Amino acid sequence: MSHNTFGHLFRVTTWGESHGPALGCVVDGCPPGIRFTLDEIQAYMDKRKPGQSRFVTQRREDDIVKVLSGVMLSEDETVMTTTGTPISMLIENTDQRSKDYGEIARRYRPGHADYAYDLKYGIRDYRGGGRSSARETAARVAAGALARKVIPGVTIRAALVQIGKHKINRGNWDWAQVEQNPFFCPDAAMVPVWEDYLDGIRKAGSSIGAVIEVVAENVPAGLGAPIYAKLDQDIASLLMSINAVKGVEVGEGFAAAELSGEENADEMRMGNDGQPLFLSNHAGGILGGISTGQPITARFAVKPTSSILTERQSIDADGNNVDVRTKGRHDPCVGIRAAPIGEAMVACALADHFLRDRGQTGKAR
Amino acid sequence: MSHNTFGHLFRVTTWGESHGPALGCVVDGCPPGIRFTLDEIQAYMDKRKPGQSRFVTQRREDDIVKVLSGVMLSEDETVMTTTGTPISMLIENTDQRSKDYGEIARRYRPGHADYAYDLKYGIRDYRGGGRSSARETAARVAAGALARKVIPGVTIRAALVQIGKHKINRGNWDWAQVEQNPFFCPDAAMVPVWEDYLDGIRKAGSSIGAVIEVVAENVPAGLGAPIYAKLDQDIASLLMSINAVKGVEVGEGFAAAELSGEENADEMRMGNDGQPLFLSNHAGGILGGISTGQPITARFAVKPTSSILTERQSIDADGNNVDVRTKGRHDPCVGIRAAPIGEAMVACALADHFLRDRGQTGKAR
Amino acid sequence: MSHNTFGHLFRVTTWGESHGPALGCVVDGCPPGIRFTLDEIQAYMDKRKPGQSRFVTQRREDDIVKVLSGVMLSEDETVMTTTGTPISMLIENTDQRSKDYGEIARRYRPGHADYAYDLKYGIRDYRGGGRSSARETAARVAAGALARKVIPGVTIRAALVQIGKHKINRGNWDWAQVEQNPFFCPDAAMVPVWEDYLDGIRKAGSSIGAVIEVVAENVPAGLGAPIYAKLDQDIASLLMSINAVKGVEVGEGFAAAELSGEENADEMRMGNDGQPLFLSNHAGGILGGISTGQPITARFAVKPTSSILTERQSIDADGNNVDVRTKGRHDPCVGIRAAPIGEAMVACALADHFLRDRGQTGKAR
Amino acid sequence: MSHNTFGHLFRVTTWGESHGPALGCVVDGCPPGIRFTLDEIQAYMDKRKPGQSRFVTQRREDDIVKVLSGVMLSEDETVMTTTGTPISMLIENTDQRSKDYGEIARRYRPGHADYAYDLKYGIRDYRGGGRSSARETAARVAAGALARKVIPGVTIRAALVQIGKHKINRGNWDWAQVEQNPFFCPDAAMVPVWEDYLDGIRKAGSSIGAVIEVVAENVPAGLGAPIYAKLDQDIASLLMSINAVKGVEVGEGFAAAELSGEENADEMRMGNDGQPLFLSNHAGGILGGISTGQPITARFAVKPTSSILTERQSIDADGNNVDVRTKGRHDPCVGIRAAPIGEAMVACALADHFLRDRGQTGKAR
Repeated sequence: MSHNTFGHLFRVTTWGESHGPALGCVVDGCPPGIRFTLDEIQAYMDKRKPGQSRFVTQRREDDIVKVLSGVMLSEDETVMTTTGTPISMLIENTDQRSKDYGEIARRYRPGHADYAYDLKYGIRDYRGGGRSSARETAARVAAGALARKVIPGVTIRAALVQIGKHKINRGNWDWAQVEQNPFFCPDAAMVPVWEDYLDGIRKAGSSIGAVIEVVAENVPAGLGAPIYAKLDQDIASLLMSINAVKGVEVGEGFAAAELSGEENADEMRMGNDGQPLFLSNHAGGILGGISTGQPITARFAVKPTSSILTERQSIDADGNNVDVRTKGRHDPCVGIRAAPIGEAMVACALADHFLRDRGQTGKAR
Repeated sequence: MSHNTFGHLFRVTTWGESHGPALGCVVDGCPPGIRFTLDEIQAYMDKRKPGQSRFVTQRREDDIVKVLSGVMLSEDETVMTTTGTPISMLIENTDQRSKDYGEIARRYRPGHADYAYDLKYGIRDYRGGGRSSARETAARVAAGALARKVIPGVTIRAALVQIGKHKINRGNWDWAQVEQNPFFCPDAAMVPVWEDYLDGIRKAGSSIGAVIEVVAENVPAGLGAPIYAKLDQDIASLLMSINAVKGVEVGEGFAAAELSGEENADEMRMGNDGQPLFLSNHAGGILGGISTGQPITARFAVKPTSSILTERQSIDADGNNVDVRTKGRHDPCVGIRAAPIGEAMVACALADHFLRDRGQTGKAR
Repeated sequence: MSHNTFGHLFRVTTWGESHGPALGCVVDGCPPGIRFTLDEIQAYMDKRKPGQSRFVTQRREDDIVKVLSGVMLSEDETVMTTTGTPISMLIENTDQRSKDYGEIARRYRPGHADYAYDLKYGIRDYRGGGRSSARETAARVAAGALARKVIPGVTIRAALVQIGKHKINRGNWDWAQVEQNPFFCPDAAMVPVWEDYLDGIRKAGSSIGAVIEVVAENVPAGLGAPIYAKLDQDIASLLMSINAVKGVEVGEGFAAAELSGEENADEMRMGNDGQPLFLSNHAGGILGGISTGQPITARFAVKPTSSILTERQSIDADGNNVDVRTKGRHDPCVGIRAAPIGEAMVACALADHFLRDRGQTGKAR
Repeated sequence: MSHNTFGHLFRVTTWGESHGPALGCVVDGCPPGIRFTLDEIQAYMDKRKPGQSRFVTQRREDDIVKVLSGVMLSEDETVMTTTGTPISMLIENTDQRSKDYGEIARRYRPGHADYAYDLKYGIRDYRGGGRSSARETAARVAAGALARKVIPGVTIRAALVQIGKHKINRGNWDWAQVEQNPFFCPDAAMVPVWEDYLDGIRKAGSSIGAVIEVVAENVPAGLGAPIYAKLDQDIASLLMSINAVKGVEVGEGFAAAELSGEENADEMRMGNDGQPLFLSNHAGGILGGISTGQPITARFAVKPTSSILTERQSIDADGNNVDVRTKGRHDPCVGIRAAPIGEAMVACALADHFLRDRGQTGKAR
């Protein structure tokens, strides 16, 4: 089951199951001389953390990151400076509620990876979803927190733009709102709508999908490479690696299918400051696989979690027809907690291409 | 400008510009003992070939593939058998109409990679788009033709499902139709609509986007790997590597955002033949990154080509405001010719994961 | 400082410094269904462990391996079974004797990596050698213990064949001896010679080099790949990745330069059992980069450690001439503890090629 | 039979058999803006070319390199400038003397890769050695010629230091001599000795091994990475990938086993020019896997070719005992032609690490 690593120069390896003692990641290729505090990393972890509102799973994990290698501590032990060696980060699993998994161990939950894992490996850690649990993404967020530091001045933010059929009004977009509601919603007017809607879904033991948008600003021009290491290709690849993601788009995305060449092209003019200026950003900040300096915009669709209280038809490992109802603490909309993960994935893709462009130590040319 | 290679065990490296003497690819990791004829490869090349209808570029290229290595010829020189060594395939560029590129060499065409290339590399082969020309995809189709042979019995087909705002009626889907119109359209009723629509676009010197769907049938269960080598991730990555692609989705894709967990889960029952049976395929044949044996379905959105006859505002390499009008022979809808390329990319992703699962020689366990 | 990972399908990532809280590795791609006990791993760890005789560093580390992920425990918690997910192993650093590193932090020890690290990264964890400490190899040995399990029936053993100018008599080779002396010496007659010799070196605060031979038996034929993934190439690469290794050879190695084609060729005959039989093994079990089924033999040369009590001329980070004398607990012959590391590296190379040949789950064809 | 590619950022893929229409390589990741002429590349090709003296195979190949992509031609078509896109180079096979291979197709030549290939792949291009022919190395030399250009000012030269038991006197080393004899011998006094010695071997239809030394001067300090991408590790890996190479060493190499720490350490002093100065170079220019700025020295041992006129015992593919005598035009000492190949491999390893350090376009920090 090879390949729990991604990245070419900025390389991240994650490990760990939902119900083992811990999970974590090794961030390899992080340039030396980057200063950070644990609080900075923890702030991102807290955004993804379960149990923060009634709209996400009530599993409680502190998600405290320990840094085991790759840094020098300041005298007062508050600031860490990377040395260029691999940074090992570990997060203990604290809320492993013991329960009888006997049933799930044999029954395939529709829409879960259970059946596919058993087909491929003949063995599977069924406790809490094992490796395919959403807990794996905690390690991604920790890695992403470092990745952000690699590119000076970059800002990477995510927001939910759709839950079920309810899409935000893009005219209302306000990044400040994103921090002020449990949905990472940039449209204040949409918050009560989603609140009502998700309450209904939650009470019914059902679930619903969502669309998340990630925007990266102050990305240097020239990142990426033509053909098979396009920046948008690598962003798409990493966003699709998030559990439950079924679609990815950059810039206009699928809407581009309906546009004419005249509508879609981003015209240019020299700005008053003598710098080239794009008059629009249909491309999402990437042309020919290379960043142009405009904001990079990507969206991804998250399916509804398959863990629902309604009984569904299925089979078990012995080839019997069974009905499966997934009890436990689940997210009515896993898309909500996917926002900080999407940010982390974009951050890692950008850090990797930044180093490919500038070299291992990431120094500016 | 690293990385003109993709794949982990089935590895494809493409090379070549639009206006050099030739382009081609090296297919490395192809198992030994695969038999094929040049005609089989050529059949796929011909589907992608320009100049076949008034709806695609009138550039004429024979796109004849020469196999330079990696095979043993049968006595009568008709059948090639792979030996496991790298297969080098070469396609000569025959229609390199000479023209004055002076203007394009300096002016950035809006929506093209020109500006981004110059920013990154400071030099660019501006003739016919150079490396970012759609001609690069000829090499992909040749590689894809071999990739199909790696998985016994697999069928990989693509169809256009949308041009501009005109979507097919999925109830009319008929694969036989796809071969019978210039649009790879599976809905006979849609063909005259697209014909009229594209005629208008073509005459206006404009362009339009499209959506292509790729379906892979008879894919063995168990291909792919959880987390960072998900089968859907690698398919998404390769589809996004095609020029002009702005979005990718698998199974329900973005529509999954609007589905409830009950609607989206694919229920299972034991079939009359004693084999597990899925009652639906919202997942697009992939669960947890691993193929389930159901058909794999993926879609990708192609933006309208930026090469249009209307003047657009831009700048030149010297920082002057200029207006650019792209003359030449261009596709009114590049999405049409993207269909065989999408097939090739999915074929390569499947071949790679097949070998990762079964080993270098691809023998069944 | 990218690349603390090796392997293509069986992938090992190591992390950790000498004086941090812990070090460890993530073994990714290990097939599912492999059963092992912690005692089995610990047995290999103990062979490498410091402080076991007066001929190795007196630093004391228990080197207890904790397995944090990738396994299912048996009911009685004694046997672990791999699930195919990444296996994270952690070893705590327990003997981090605090001392004043101020001097070493600024002075470059001749023959150490200090100067090169500072040149490249501008920052370096000088405590105990940091990342370039021999402690990193503990993680390799843990990974190697799993790698051995991947290939059924394989035996991988190492022995010292030379310390300083004192070479063993190959006619006396007895694997049983290797376990019975502190030198991994297969020649009982050589043990007292080395004992005397190293006592002298140790008392003088000096150090000496060594040559280690690794032999792998019961390696399946057909592992490796021609040209750029030759089995001997990958073995050489991993052996050279061990700190202080300056040379590697396979089969006859450098001695082959003095042989004629007649002398060097390994003739073949059909054996009485109807199986092909090699009449000699000058090739070291590998032809054209592919294993033949004969024992694989490789040797590597370890330089004397640069940590010696004699003052040597050097410079400091401020460009002053200084004299450096490396105090502390050091190995008079680091080659001794390199034997289990060499075994581990060969085991990992073989496991990787086994999976490349047979596929991710390593099932026999 | 995956992996005919090497390098991480400067990536080379070779393809082609001895008796196909052509062979070649794709050099990917070469920075833009490098200017070269075909004559420069050809000069390196000519050093490796067969048929140049009676001491190498009499097969005649012009080995003319054609550059098919990745460059812009100057107006007068003499100078090529790289654009950063993949550079495809092709060399036609012109001297494919037709002969009856029936016998070799079934009989395993002792010491050749025949047996191992058949075991692994079940099919093999037996004509002229197929993929394992020394002709594959022509592509390496072409790639190496470009690699040299990546690092400004670097000089990479190779010399034979031993044929059979006859070693050069290092005190006589004169690089100017290397160009003036058919052996790349730096010791003028040794030339007549080797001449006599090889004449005898040639007339007897026998063969002999050799040792080649490669020296790289003006290598920037800071190339390489600790642990698993050590510069010496990657050099060793590539030298071991050359056919018939059985051993590799850096700096003192195996001789380091006999040295004490005092003898082996390279002391330092500040030079009169205010620059750090090494007082010796036992390390071969690499410490902790990172270049120090000193000359890099590596040696590799080439076994005698297995193609000899004396009959040797072997078996055939049907399991019969047979005697094999390899007729044809062979090198009495393949080590001679390995000198330019060794240079090329070191050049590629350095170019790769140069780009990893400085970024894709190789600009100085």
